[in-house]
Parts: sequence; C-alpha cells; structure tokens
Amino acid sequence: MTSVLITGASRGFGLALARELASRPASSIGKIFATARGDSAALNELAQKLPDRVVLVQLDVTNQDSIKKAAAEVQTKLGGKGLDVLINNAGVCQYVSGGVPTMDNLEESFTINVLGVHWVTREFLPLLKKGSLKKVANISTTMGSITLAGAAAALPAPAYKISKAAMNALTVQYALEFEKEGFSFIALCPGWLKTDLGGGDMADLTAEEGAKASLDILFKEGQVYNGQLPKVFVKGWEHPQEGRWNVYDGTNAPW
Amino acid sequence: MTSVLITGASRGFGLALARELASRPASSIGKIFATARGDSAALNELAQKLPDRVVLVQLDVTNQDSIKKAAAEVQTKLGGKGLDVLINNAGVCQYVSGGVPTMDNLEESFTINVLGVHWVTREFLPLLKKGSLKKVANISTTMGSITLAGAAAALPAPAYKISKAAMNALTVQYALEFEKEGFSFIALCPGWLKTDLGGGDMADLTAEEGAKASLDILFKEGQVYNGQLPKVFVKGWEHPQEGRWNVYDGTNAPW
Repeated sequence: MTSVLITGASRGFGLALARELASRPASSIGKIFATARGDSAALNELAQKLPDRVVLVQLDVTNQDSIKKAAAEVQTKLGGKGLDVLINNAGVCQYVSGGVPTMDNLEESFTINVLGVHWVTREFLPLLKKGSLKKVANISTTMGSITLAGAAAALPAPAYKISKAAMNALTVQYALEFEKEGFSFIALCPGWLKTDLGGGDMADLTAEEGAKASLDILFKEGQVYNGQLPKVFVKGWEHPQEGRWNVYDGTNAPW
Repeated sequence: MTSVLITGASRGFGLALARELASRPASSIGKIFATARGDSAALNELAQKLPDRVVLVQLDVTNQDSIKKAAAEVQTKLGGKGLDVLINNAGVCQYVSGGVPTMDNLEESFTINVLGVHWVTREFLPLLKKGSLKKVANISTTMGSITLAGAAAALPAPAYKISKAAMNALTVQYALEFEKEGFSFIALCPGWLKTDLGGGDMADLTAEEGAKASLDILFKEGQVYNGQLPKVFVKGWEHPQEGRWNVYDGTNAPW
C-alpha cells in the first residue's frame, strides 16, 4: 500500500490528484496526505468519505515551522512506516500587465514555487528515505523550459516561467544527489489544465486527465524519470494537430 | 564613444572588466561607470588615473533605492546621452557543506543573482533605450546550465547553480521582449576565472583573459547572442585537452 503526500490539495490539480488516488483500491493506495494552507470543503468531503485513507494536514509551503509541524504529524500517522511518494504541487502562476520590467512578483513566485519545494522536500526526506518508492514529483510546466521560451512568449507570466526554471534546476540538484539511494526526483509536466491556475476552460485537459496521466509517470517502475522533465502522455493528444498548441506524447521537454 | 556600466566592479572579474575597458582608447570607450556596494582601493586608483572616463558609483544590487539613486546619478553624468552597455556582473557563489537539503542560502543567492539583475536592468532600461548599442550582459556560468548539471555535480554550490539557471531564464524573458527594439540580452559565460568567486588559482583563466574574451562577445556586431548563453573563445582553450575540464570555444552552452 503506497502512501502519498500532496501539497496544495485544496483545489485544482492537487485536489484532482487526491481524488484520483482515493478512487484507486485501498490495496494499492494507502494513506493519502492531502495538505493545504487553509480549509477546503472539497477536501473535507473527500476525507469524510474515506476517513481511514485520506488525511488532511495543514501545511503552508512558505512557512518552515508549518512544514515541520506537518512532517511531525505525518510521521505519527504513518506509525513508523515511511512515506512513499511526495508530490510538490502547491504553486502560483503570477502575471504582469506591463511587460517584464514591471514584474514585481518574482520574489513571491520564487518563495512559493522554489523555496517552498526545497523546504517541504528536505523536511519530508527522512520519511521518504524509509519509504519503498522514493519518488518526488515537483509539478512543473513547459513554461519553465528556457529552450521553449520563444514559443511561450505570448503568456505574460515571466515570474512563473523563471521560478519554474529555477524549480527544475532544484529538482536536478536533488536528483543527482539522491539517485544512488534509489530516489526519483521528477519535474513533472501535467499539461495545460482546466484549473484556476491554468486559466479555466481555454486549457487542453481536465484536471482529472492530467492527474491520471501524471500518476502514470509517477508510478512507472524504476528511476527512468529521475532528473527529467517529462510531459504526460494522453491518448488523442500524442500527435501535433492543427489548432492545438500542445502535444502530450510522454517525452521529456528540454530544459 | 561607448559608455558602459559594470556592477560589482570592486574586485575580481568586474574590476578586470573596468580595467580592460579603461585600457582601450578614449575614442572607442567613453564613460565607464564602475559600480560597487562599498569602497574599493583598486577602483579608486583606476578612477584617479582616468578621472574623465572612470566614474565610481555606489550601487547595492539588493537595494532598489540604491539602484534608483545610482541610475539618477548616471543619467546626470551622461548629460542627456544614453547608456550603451550594461554588465550585470555583481553576484555570489554560495556553497553548502552537507548536501542539497542543508542549503539555507538559496534565498540570498536568488536575491543577489536574480532579483538584483532584474532590478538593475529595469532601472537602467530607459537609459539603455537611448543608447546606441543596447547590449546587456548578465554574467553567467555553465554551472547554471541544467543540461550540464551532471558534469558539475562535484561543485557543492547548489544555490549558485539554481540561481544562475533562474538568471538565465530571466535573461531570455528580457531578450524576447526587447529583441525588436534592437537589444541584446546575453547570459555571458566568461569562463572559470582565478578570482575570489572562482576559487583562486585552481581556475582556468585570469580575470583579464576572461574580461578580454567577454568583451569580444559583448561588442560583436548585431544581435546574434540575444537570448543565448555563449561561452568565451580563448586561444589555446578551444579544443578539449587531457587534464582540462573546460573548453572555451565560443559556442553557446545548452540551457
């Protein structure tokens, strides 16, 4: 029975991940630690339906004390077992209205999208080392690919792009250090999703489609994705099509 | 007569850039704004030798008020002319002793190496728009290449690598936005230099060699390096050689 912790699970992609995991048999997915800064009606509902498996944990990724408290709580709930999977999903996509020079949210984006991932990861690392899968997915995006920046120029979210590039670099630092211990640190691209962060209905995939396809990557055996930037594979989206911006063919995006 | 502003010019590579520029004929290089946080005997000496060309300016890249004050001062000194070249050189290389999870200097590295570059660039942008060359060099490193991270794993400076990857992403955001206005934003790799930041005599090139080769890139006509990560070209270092880690062949490094 695999245990999983998800940050930013109150809504959007994080909530979809929690629901998808909860829908799988208890013989396969055990404890699901759904963490969020604040209260979430949707999460409460999920936890009430499956009180033995879904555990709500208060966690603010920008607050190291909050992270430490959450880690202690999770450790207690695991009763001596390790944590198998960590999904660093909490994040923001911040925009500018007057071009790159007007960007005043880079520091905030960096704190949430990069420092938050670093702080959560290092705090849960002792539990992950005791886990059986040793998988860490840092939710990323092709918007964080510097190589692909030209194609993404129309989206006025430089702080998002820059902080995700930094998060990708952080992911690779962890990947290189812990590869020998059997870890996979994955900068996972779930696709452009119909969530608040993704901008709603204009996007390509539902949060549920993105969640299922992301878990395919995450639960792939072995360390093939360690230190990589894989895009999800979604049937019907694996080839370029007119009128479509994105292809979800399961390949790694370039840095 | 080209005007140039260099941040972090009190020592190391920044000082070498200032000296190299000052050594060139006044008919080619005009005003050299050598900025630093604090006082520098070496810079004072240079300014005393060439009081008409070398202008010392107090500038702390982590302090937006200090940057605004410096920009106003430079504007006055330029007497209505634009600034031709900005070299964002101020930066830190911070280490960890116990592996990536012990990294507690990422925020500080990010503030100096990324926010500092952003804040300085946007403040001097109006002067650069009036300049004739429109070149901005953000001093980078192959250590900031995520693609090459495996080869650089032995250097325990994750905050340096991650913040430089973010600075590269920032550089490309500016490059895409201002390409049409004739700008070149370059993430310039001067090589591994025998400076305090570079770790001294173990390094490959003297600060002077790095400065000369970097100015070759910077003063190359046109916008060929806009949004790129060029390594310097240094004679004798353009081919791989046994016992040498680096090659300085003038090619672009991958992101």
